[in-house]
This record gives sequence, C-alpha cells and structure tokens, in this order.
Amino acid sequence: MSENTYPSVNDLTLEEKASLTSGGDAWHLQGIESKGIPGYMITDGPHGLRKSLASDTGSTDLNDSVPATCFPPAAGLSSSWNPELTHQVGEAMAEECIQEKVAVILGPGVNIKRNPLGGRCFEYWSEDPLLAGHEAAGLVNGIQSKGVGTSLKHFAVNSQETDRLRVDARVSQRALREIYFPAFEYIVRNAQPWTIMCSYNKINGVHAAQNHWLLTDVLRGDWGFKGIVMSDWGAAHDRVASLNAGLNLEMPPSFTDDRIVYAARDGRIAPEQLDRMAQGMIDLIDKARAAMSIEGYRFDVEAHDEIARKAALESMVLLKNEDAVLPLAEDAKVAVIGEFARTPRYQGGGSSHITPTKMTGFLDTLTARGIDARFAPGFTLDLEPQDPALTAEAVDAAKGADVVLMFLGLPEAAESEGFDRENIDMPAKQIELLKAVAAENANVVVVLSNGSVVSVAPWANNAKGILESWLLGQAGGPALADVIFGKVSPSGKLAQSIPLSIDDDPTMLNWPGEEGHVDYGEGVFVGYRYYDTYGKAVDYPFGFGLSYASFEISDVVVSKTGANTASVTAKVTNTSDVDGAEVVQVYVAPGKAAVARPAHELKGFRKVFLKAGETAEVTIDLDERAFAYWSEKFDGWHVEAGEYTVEVGTSSRDIAGTASVTLDGDGKSLPLDEWSTFSEWREDPIGGPIVEAMKAKGESGELAKLPDNDMMNLFINSMPINSLTTLLGEPGKAVTAFLIDEYAKAAK
Amino acid sequence: MSENTYPSVNDLTLEEKASLTSGGDAWHLQGIESKGIPGYMITDGPHGLRKSLASDTGSTDLNDSVPATCFPPAAGLSSSWNPELTHQVGEAMAEECIQEKVAVILGPGVNIKRNPLGGRCFEYWSEDPLLAGHEAAGLVNGIQSKGVGTSLKHFAVNSQETDRLRVDARVSQRALREIYFPAFEYIVRNAQPWTIMCSYNKINGVHAAQNHWLLTDVLRGDWGFKGIVMSDWGAAHDRVASLNAGLNLEMPPSFTDDRIVYAARDGRIAPEQLDRMAQGMIDLIDKARAAMSIEGYRFDVEAHDEIARKAALESMVLLKNEDAVLPLAEDAKVAVIGEFARTPRYQGGGSSHITPTKMTGFLDTLTARGIDARFAPGFTLDLEPQDPALTAEAVDAAKGADVVLMFLGLPEAAESEGFDRENIDMPAKQIELLKAVAAENANVVVVLSNGSVVSVAPWANNAKGILESWLLGQAGGPALADVIFGKVSPSGKLAQSIPLSIDDDPTMLNWPGEEGHVDYGEGVFVGYRYYDTYGKAVDYPFGFGLSYASFEISDVVVSKTGANTASVTAKVTNTSDVDGAEVVQVYVAPGKAAVARPAHELKGFRKVFLKAGETAEVTIDLDERAFAYWSEKFDGWHVEAGEYTVEVGTSSRDIAGTASVTLDGDGKSLPLDEWSTFSEWREDPIGGPIVEAMKAKGESGELAKLPDNDMMNLFINSMPINSLTTLLGEPGKAVTAFLIDEYAKAAK
Repeated sequence: MSENTYPSVNDLTLEEKASLTSGGDAWHLQGIESKGIPGYMITDGPHGLRKSLASDTGSTDLNDSVPATCFPPAAGLSSSWNPELTHQVGEAMAEECIQEKVAVILGPGVNIKRNPLGGRCFEYWSEDPLLAGHEAAGLVNGIQSKGVGTSLKHFAVNSQETDRLRVDARVSQRALREIYFPAFEYIVRNAQPWTIMCSYNKINGVHAAQNHWLLTDVLRGDWGFKGIVMSDWGAAHDRVASLNAGLNLEMPPSFTDDRIVYAARDGRIAPEQLDRMAQGMIDLIDKARAAMSIEGYRFDVEAHDEIARKAALESMVLLKNEDAVLPLAEDAKVAVIGEFARTPRYQGGGSSHITPTKMTGFLDTLTARGIDARFAPGFTLDLEPQDPALTAEAVDAAKGADVVLMFLGLPEAAESEGFDRENIDMPAKQIELLKAVAAENANVVVVLSNGSVVSVAPWANNAKGILESWLLGQAGGPALADVIFGKVSPSGKLAQSIPLSIDDDPTMLNWPGEEGHVDYGEGVFVGYRYYDTYGKAVDYPFGFGLSYASFEISDVVVSKTGANTASVTAKVTNTSDVDGAEVVQVYVAPGKAAVARPAHELKGFRKVFLKAGETAEVTIDLDERAFAYWSEKFDGWHVEAGEYTVEVGTSSRDIAGTASVTLDGDGKSLPLDEWSTFSEWREDPIGGPIVEAMKAKGESGELAKLPDNDMMNLFINSMPINSLTTLLGEPGKAVTAFLIDEYAKAAK
Repeated sequence: MSENTYPSVNDLTLEEKASLTSGGDAWHLQGIESKGIPGYMITDGPHGLRKSLASDTGSTDLNDSVPATCFPPAAGLSSSWNPELTHQVGEAMAEECIQEKVAVILGPGVNIKRNPLGGRCFEYWSEDPLLAGHEAAGLVNGIQSKGVGTSLKHFAVNSQETDRLRVDARVSQRALREIYFPAFEYIVRNAQPWTIMCSYNKINGVHAAQNHWLLTDVLRGDWGFKGIVMSDWGAAHDRVASLNAGLNLEMPPSFTDDRIVYAARDGRIAPEQLDRMAQGMIDLIDKARAAMSIEGYRFDVEAHDEIARKAALESMVLLKNEDAVLPLAEDAKVAVIGEFARTPRYQGGGSSHITPTKMTGFLDTLTARGIDARFAPGFTLDLEPQDPALTAEAVDAAKGADVVLMFLGLPEAAESEGFDRENIDMPAKQIELLKAVAAENANVVVVLSNGSVVSVAPWANNAKGILESWLLGQAGGPALADVIFGKVSPSGKLAQSIPLSIDDDPTMLNWPGEEGHVDYGEGVFVGYRYYDTYGKAVDYPFGFGLSYASFEISDVVVSKTGANTASVTAKVTNTSDVDGAEVVQVYVAPGKAAVARPAHELKGFRKVFLKAGETAEVTIDLDERAFAYWSEKFDGWHVEAGEYTVEVGTSSRDIAGTASVTLDGDGKSLPLDEWSTFSEWREDPIGGPIVEAMKAKGESGELAKLPDNDMMNLFINSMPINSLTTLLGEPGKAVTAFLIDEYAKAAK
C-alpha cells in the first residue's frame, strides 16, 4: 500500500484517534477495521520470537509460546563483537515474525549493565554503551530490513529489577548522556527502530512514561527519532500525562480510551499532540503492512538453527587455557561432568523466554558425532545441598580421563527478569564438586553456563581451562563441540568486566537503592571506566578473550581527518598456524581535561577473521563524539582542544599500540561574568588583558591594589570577582565594576 | 548588664537595625555608639587566637597577628578522643580572647573529612561526625564557659577547597543528616555556640548564605539554635536573600546597608525578619559584655603553654612499634635526622595561622633537657630535589646510633586553606632519605608531622617505629620528648582512616567535582563506613593507636534502657606495668535494615587513664539516635525494630567484645495506597487480611483471580496494585478498587 492510500488521522474521529493509543489486547495493536487499520500482533523478543499463547488461551505462563529459533541471548551474542552477525540473526528473527504474523518484535534491550547483579543482565549487552549500541544496531537493522519492526527497550536507565516499577533513578545529566543514553542514541540515529519501549522506572523524579524531556526533547528533538514510543507492559499510569509527554501507545490496554477523549475535549491534551501520537500509530501499522500481507510464509528451521549455531560459536569467551588444554583431540579420553552438559541452560527467564524449534545439548551432540565420553551429572539443578553420591560418581568418572569437561553454571532460578541477584558466586555445591574432581584429575576444563557474570577467581586454580559460554541458545551443544574439539577457534570477547569481588564495583554503594530511589553516585565510572581509571585489579578485563590462534597488532597510525576527528589504522596478523578471529579495539584516552574523565573509553572496534599467517589492515574512524564529554556547563557535548591518546588493543588492559592526536577543540566558551574567578579571567583571551589593565591601575593608584603574595594569590585565583569587597573593602567594588565594564566593551 | 537594660530592636531605627547585620570592618561587629551597642572584635581561631593586625595596619598577610598560645590544630587534638581536654584548651583560648578583647573566636570547624585530600583537613576533626561533635563540643563549652563566643563553622558541607566559593555540593538528605550535619547538630544541642558561620558553597543548588532550609528550618527549627549566623568572609552575595534565609551578619561588610533599608521599606524583607536578625546581633553583643568589660586581664602564658603540651601529648598516634623500639632509654645513643626536628611544623596555613607565644622544637628540647643526640637535617623544606650531601650527612649521623629518630612530614606549602592536595604521598626526597638511612641503621623511628593523612605503607618497612604526631602546636617539642623517652605513654587514636591508596577512597569518583558541582555519590559511605562495610583493606583503621601499656576489654554487657535505647558497660584493664590510657569505642551494627547502612558506626567512646594493673568499668548510654537512620520516606529519623549488635573495641577493626539488643522500633509506617506493592500489602497488618479476602473472592469468582506460579509471584510481589490491568485486563480494576476500598474502611 502506498503512502497516499493509507488513512491519516484526519480521516478518524476523536474516539478512533484515542483508541489507536492503546493496545487491542495484551499482544495486539488496536486496529480500526472500518478504516482499514489492522490490529497487528506485537510480541516479545529479543533473542527470538516469543509469540505468547496467552491472548489465545488465557494462559499467563510466560513460557507458553509457539516454537521459534532460540538464538543466544544478548549475554552471549554481545561477546561476539560482531554487528554483521547480529544483523544476520535479526534477519532470521524477522522471517519468523513474518511467518507468525508478528509486526513488531519487542527488543533488543540495550540498558547498560551497571552492576552485574542486575536481574536482566543476561538480556542486556554490555557495560559499555558503544559496544551495546553497535551490536544491537546490527540486530535492529537486520530485523527491519525484512519489513518487521523492533522495539528498542527499556528507555531508559532500567538497570535493575528491584522495585523497578517505582524506583527513581537519580542520575547526573553527564552519566545519562555518556553512559545510559548512547546505545539508544546510536541505534536511533543509525537504525531508526520503528518503536521504542519506555521503562517502568522514574528518571530524576519523573516516570519514563510521562517524561517529556526524555520522550520528546531528547529522543525526538536531539536524536531525531521518527517512530513511536510504547509503554513497557503496565508502565503507563496516567495516559493523559503520557500522551502529552510523547508516549504513543499504552500496552497492555488499561481500557481508559474514554479518558483520552475527555481530556482532548477539555484541552488537557492538545489536538495536535493527540494527532501526532495517533498518526505515529498509523504510520507504524503501515510500515508493517507489506510484511504482514505475506501469506503462507514458512521460515527455514534448519537454516535458522545454523545461524543460531554460528552465533553461539562467536558468543563463547575462552578465559583460561593453561598448557593449551583446549582444543581436545577427537580421540581424547574425555569425561563430561555436570548436569548442564545433559540439560543445557541456554536462555534466561522472564518475558524473553522462548520455546525453541529444536534443542541439542552437548552430550547429545557428542552422541550424534560418535564421540565417546563418560558422563556424570555431578550435581542437581535445584537448591538442595550437594549429594555425596553424585560427587563420588563424578570423581570416578574423572579417573583416568585425559581431560575432564565440567559443565558448571547458574541454574535458571538464579537469574531472571523480576529480581536482582544477591551475589555473583557460583553455587557452592558446584565448587565443592569441582574441587573434588580436580583433586582426582588435574586436566579440568570448566565450561560455564550463566547469563550474568559469575566470579571465577575463587575456584579458577582448579581448572586449566575456562570457557565462559554464557547462554548459547538452542544450538549451543554443537557450537560447544565445535570449539572444544578445535573445529573453530573461540573468538568471543568480554562485553563486561569480571571483577574479583562484587564489592569492588563502585555501584555497590548505591545498589539497589532504597526508599524508592537509587542514586547513580558513581557517575560515568561504570565497569572498566572505573576499574581502569582507578587502577583496580579485575579478574578478567573488559574486551578480554583468548583464541587458539595468536595475533599481533602493529603499525598503529592515527591521522587527523578534521578539526576534531581522526582515523586510526593498524595491522593485525594471525601469527599462528590455526585460523581465528581477533577483535581490534580502539580506546581513546583524553589528556588533561576540565572534568573527571575515564582513563580511556572504547570508541571503535572491528572483528577480523584471519587465516593462519594472514594479515589485515583495519581502519576505524573516530568522529567528534569519540573525543567529547557531556558538559553540564554548556548543556551539550564538548571537545576540548589538546592531545588525545588513541589506544589499539585486544582488551581494555591489553593495549598493543598507541598514537596521539592533537585536536583543535570545538572552541566553546562561556562569557565571563562577576561569578567568574580571577583564574578564569586571567586565562580568557578577552579577560586576561583587562586584568592586566586593572593591575596597572592598581599600581598607578586609580584603583585599589590587590594583595600580592603566594598565599593571597592562592585565595584570589579561586575567588569570583564579585568577592572583591571581602579583600579590599568598599574600594573593591570599583575594581569589580572596572572588570565588568571593560569586558562588556571588549566583547562587543 | 542585665537582660532588661540592654537595648532591643524596638529602640532602633530601621537604618540602625540594618547596620547591625553587617560588620563594622573585617574583624569587628558594627556597633551603635549612641545606643550603647559596642562593635566588638571577632577574629579567627580555631586552635588559638589569631587576632589579626590587618585592620590596624592594613596588612593582608594572614600570618601577621598578635602572639597567642598555639594549641594543636584539630588534626592533632582530634586524635585525643578527649572532650575534657578540648574543654580545657577552650578555657585557655577564652582567657586569651579576654585579654585581647575578642568577643568571638571563629571556630571550631567541624566539617567532615570526606576525602583526605581536602585542603583544610588539618583544621577539621574527623571522618566521623560523632567524634567530631563530641570533641569540638568540649572546645565550644570550654570557650563559652568564660563568657567568650565561638563560631561553629563552616555550615555546611564545605568539604573541599577547590572552587569553594561557588561549588554546588549535591548531597542526599540522608548523607546530610547522618554524615555532614550531626557534628553541628550535637554541638548546637549540647553547647549552643553563640554563632555559626555559614560556608561559601552551595548545598543542593542554594548558597549556604541564602539557604533558608539550612539556616532556619534545620538549624533553628529542628535543632533549636538560639545564636546568630554569620557569613564566612565574603560568602554573602545577596544580603536581602541572606537575611530572609536567616543569616544575621555579613562579614566582612560589603557596604550595602542601604540596600537592606530599601528592601525593608519595599517589603522584600519582612519587618519581623529584620527585627529577628538584628535582635540576634544585640543579644550576641550583650552576651559578650561581661567578659569584654574585664580590664587589664593577662593570661598565664606558661600555664597555657603547659596546656598546649598536655594537648600535644594526647594528639600523637603511635602507629607502629616493632621490637618495642619506643620508648627510648634516656641514655640511648640517638641520632636525630630531619629538618622538622629543628624547624617544627606545628600548625597549618590560612586563616587559622597563629603567632605562638613561644616555640620549642624537639632539638631545642633535647638541648634543654641535657640529652645528647647527633643531628642532621637530612633534607630541606622546599621543593628542590634531594641534596646528596644531606643524605650522606644523615647516613653518617645514623652510623652506630642505637636508634635513629627521623622527623619527616609535609612542608607547610603542601597543605593550606585555599587549595586541596593532589595526593597523599610523602615527599619523594624524604622517602629516598629514609631508605638510605634505614640501609645504614635498622633501628629507625619515624616521627611524622603533617596536618592531613599521608600514606605510610609505601615506606613503612623502613621503620621499626612510626609516631604520627600530626601538628602539635607550640609545645610539640617537649611533648614529643616526653613520649619518645617514655615519660608518658602515647594515647592518641586515629580520627581518620589511613588508606593504602587514595584511590581506595570512594569519594575519589567525585573529587573535587567539576563544572561547578560535586556529587556526594558515596552517600553515607565515608571513611571507615566504606572500608568496613565493603571489606576493603586499609593501612591503619579508624580509631587505631598503640600505647606503651597494654589493655584488655572484657565483660561487655548491653542492657535495654527503653524501647529504643540501651546502655553498654565494659571493663577495661591495664594489663601492663606502665601507666597509659585506652579509648573504649562503642560501635553499633544494625541487623537487616530497609536501607543500606554502614556495617557499624561509632556511637560512643570514653578515654580511660589507667595506672599499671588498674581496671575500670565504663558505661556508655546509647540513645535512640544511636540506632536510627535518616529516612527520606518518613522525612525523619527512623529506628527499625529488631536486633542490633553493640561492639566494644579499640578501633573500628579491633572489636574486643559484642553484645546484642533487640529494640522495639519506633513503629513508624506509611499508609498503603495504590502505589504500594503486593509485598507491602501482604506484610502490612491491615493490608494482609485484605489481600487474603481478595484471594478468597478470586477463588469464589467474585473477583478476577491472580495467576499463581513461581515466576508470576515474583512479578506480582514487586507490582504496585495499580498495575493489575496489566495482568488481568479490565477485571483488574475491580481488584484494585476492592483493596483500596477495604483498606479505607479498615483504616478508619
């Protein structure tokens, strides 16, 4: 249907307009049949389609949904550092939506992993907004390339589950703009998601769903968002306020469309605002028409499972590989221990829970591939204490094996939407088991299954190898076998630091808040931005991940491409005799800055697949934003003039080469006034000479003379010029007046 | 003069009232001769009288003042943990004020040492508000007992020098009430300082000098302050706003009394408010009349010097004493190295700088006492690099000595009012010297002179003994000799944690702020409240200090004395054969709390002087506040019911005994509403049964039934009941309405 044939708000009654701004039911838009506006289905993602059967069957069981390919959740996918991969996953997900007649899939969720205890960390991407934005933009573009919509969520600052429906996230403007917004901003600017889902929480006192600054000024004004904003399920409490703030759609409906009509009639909603909100809904529905009109489409289940396997391959992070214990020879005598090898944990709980099209665990894969291994479950997935019989059986299985693969991790009950974790510890009984097994057989490789970071240090010395496999989706079993037996080199990189102790995390001082609010007291110092700036030890740094191959980065060159932009090139060489992939990571370290900036920040990356011995050159452009900080003073981004160091490496702590670039700066400055200090006056191009003139008049006796000794200069430098009577008494007023007057003349 | 003979505001013209609210000059009140109101002098403290010669001579040199006894600044005195001692010091200071006709001495300063880098830490008391309040209350009471006024400063949240005239300190209500206010509050309630000096900075957006909430609602309303508030020198920028906020006195005068008159005439200042402010000034002047009428008073210079020595004795903290290297035998062969032994650093820089009545350095003391020692200066006090000749001379001096006393520390230029420190490192050249000397002679005792914490760990292994002497005032030399040669056991205790690295301090993430503001992001977790709660290593914990004696604390018993009060008794025994003093410290550790509370907090202490072998019993009362936290929810203090652990020890990390007490709680609760979660409804005595009734109606079909499975219960528990349509659709509204209606009925 072409642009000029679908209805516009002008064709609708007030009641019809109002009706468009809430859902038809929990999982459908509200259509207007008489006007040819269909009520399409919209349903959960984000790592596959969760088409709930709830609205058909009345079930409220979130796990009750039609089968769909279960791709690795963001916990895994984020470790791929590969937006092309996420694009491919997105395309596949869209095809499943088309088959199931789903117009919009609700995801991805790009909230920052502020603290590893966050209950939904498994479905968020990273502690770093650039990484989250780039990876999730791939997914959004992939989905939308097929004519299916996305809903970027949860906008914004939904970093925790505790009290999430009410909590007031108190965050500085700078932390919002530098940490909590950029992933959303990047995706809006580079992928224009059809919809954005606002979060439940308040931001600096105002619910996201009623936050005009957030939904209109920032999202549409600053970033140019063209789509619609919907509420998270139940997040809209005052639809009139929400519509005025810029929320197009309340989900699920609260059956209060009549209130919107009344509010429009008595002027509490401006007609233009209701029109804008309703027109957004019409535009959205129209965007979906083409794909939703495709009849009888069947997606290729096997092909999608293969994409899921590919995604799983890139999701694993090899943390430790002493004595090259991995990969295993196909004929190695292997013991497989751990219930997760038989009963894989492959996704998280809550609204993202998917019914997979197929499911092959690691043990099943070994069987399918004819690989012999002795198996012992080792532990149960419940919360019962360790069963000594299971330990004994596991130790026995480990006896005489060349290598013991231990599948450990968090049981599903340990992490889900709806609650935050209490700690990042591995279950005690699994550690107990690991120690018993390691005492029997030193060649232990631990394969971890967990959605959010778990601490590794307390037990790491019991394992020669540690493969963090996160949650791998439905094809995790085959992917694990591919990596473990060396068919593919692992290439995942940590999207989140692994701390030595959760108490090292500076957000712990304000986690998860209290009495209805949470202060983001750490400001911009989240994740590696804290650890690297304050020189704190971590267990595994952000960006870290081993490969079977080895790589060398060299020839780092930075060239200035504009007043405040640059381009960095580097060579990366696979110096080994196996194929593999390295992620070239570019961090920018500011020099002396007017504000406290992180030691360095990720500003670009490129995943490079290299055959054994192969070399590639990568070029990464650094735009003005790569050097900027958000200035409350200027109420905008600010690039200071001066030298910046560009670091190229393979983790935030493995920098292979650096080069520096000197930027012109954006030239922003504030005019001087009576609240400016003497230092500020002296350093200002206009103010400096005026201060000199003032001093001359002091010498000649035309004005009062400022004291001049070391101690007093210290005082005076930090003194706003309006404080001169403190120093000089009544005659000080004339000095201040002289400065202000001369500046007014000079600044003309 | 009796109350009814001095003038009241009613006797004054509008112009006269206005004139009282600013100074006569930089160091005098503005009198009204015709009405018999004198313009008394007020001048700087706080560790002795700094009667500036500035107003007489026109000098702006802060060091230009009449001689007065220089007591140890708060950096030292605070380590005494002895309010009786500070009372004695206060009395002596008041006598000097009487001689010099000073009506009000400007101090003490009880700002919290939020971060050791704070430039005025040397004149503040502690990282702990209870300790600061109790110690400084002794000083205030001591001074005022003689009819001389004090000015408690800098009210409030003046934790740094950087941009101090403009910076906006953004602090949570809870941190204000629990950390930054209690020292002021305690002193107001227990000593009624005649005046309070407001700080330069803003607090949550409003300059202290214009902050009605601060100066009127909290200070006068909540705490019952009866005195006057004056501005820090130059802190009042808008006198009309300041008068309205509750500032009585602008210092120094800005020569704008006429503006006050205009403002009163056109109603911008209410007549009653101007009257209140001016009457406060009259009352203040009247309080000072008696003492200011004493003619020809001369204080006893020698007696005051002796008090200064006593104060210095209790100010030293013995950090390390391996092999009982201290005390020294009188006939030990001693080498004394370090310029500070000859040129003592005994006070800080800035407005507190005093011209002492006499000054005996450590070397002078040895000479006076006929103790032989070889001296080498070792280094210069300037910023030049180390002179190898001085090192060689020092090493030579150390050769063959039984013990080497090394006087190290921070030169005066390293810390002062007006700027914050950049680091807590000892000067590199002194460490270099120490290493060279220690290589020659292993029996090194370092004596530190510094106003603010310096890091000790980097060089501690070069010294068998470390005596932190802070700044000891004019009698530091004799006091040091008394301690070093064992005449007196050291008894000082750290009023501030000594960290391993300044980067361990959580305030570093927001230090010293930027772009005109500083976020107190660490909330209440300042000093040991952070280190002890998050299990972080420190070099020396809060409250720590060694003695030549040894002590044992036993028989810790806690008795409940009311619903929410308790009393703790303990025995303390000097188990050694030398006399000494121990500080019995009482910390309260809350159990499970509704907010994030520090692991424990100092809630009482008692310094006990015990002869060899002597035992004493101490009793410390714990009032309701000792168990309370500030609740934003209740906008007040809140004591939760439950078990609290009372710890008795000799530092925050050396707890000798604990006992628990179960409190009734204060019974505060908020009424339930539609924003209360299901958990809150269930746990409420009224709400619980209503939820049960609702469920029953769900079973019987009268109301919609809530889903009931593990996953959904998680969601529902944290869900405000106004979110029920999200779950249940339209019928959810009736469920919410049922709950609200039944509650309204039941709560009647």
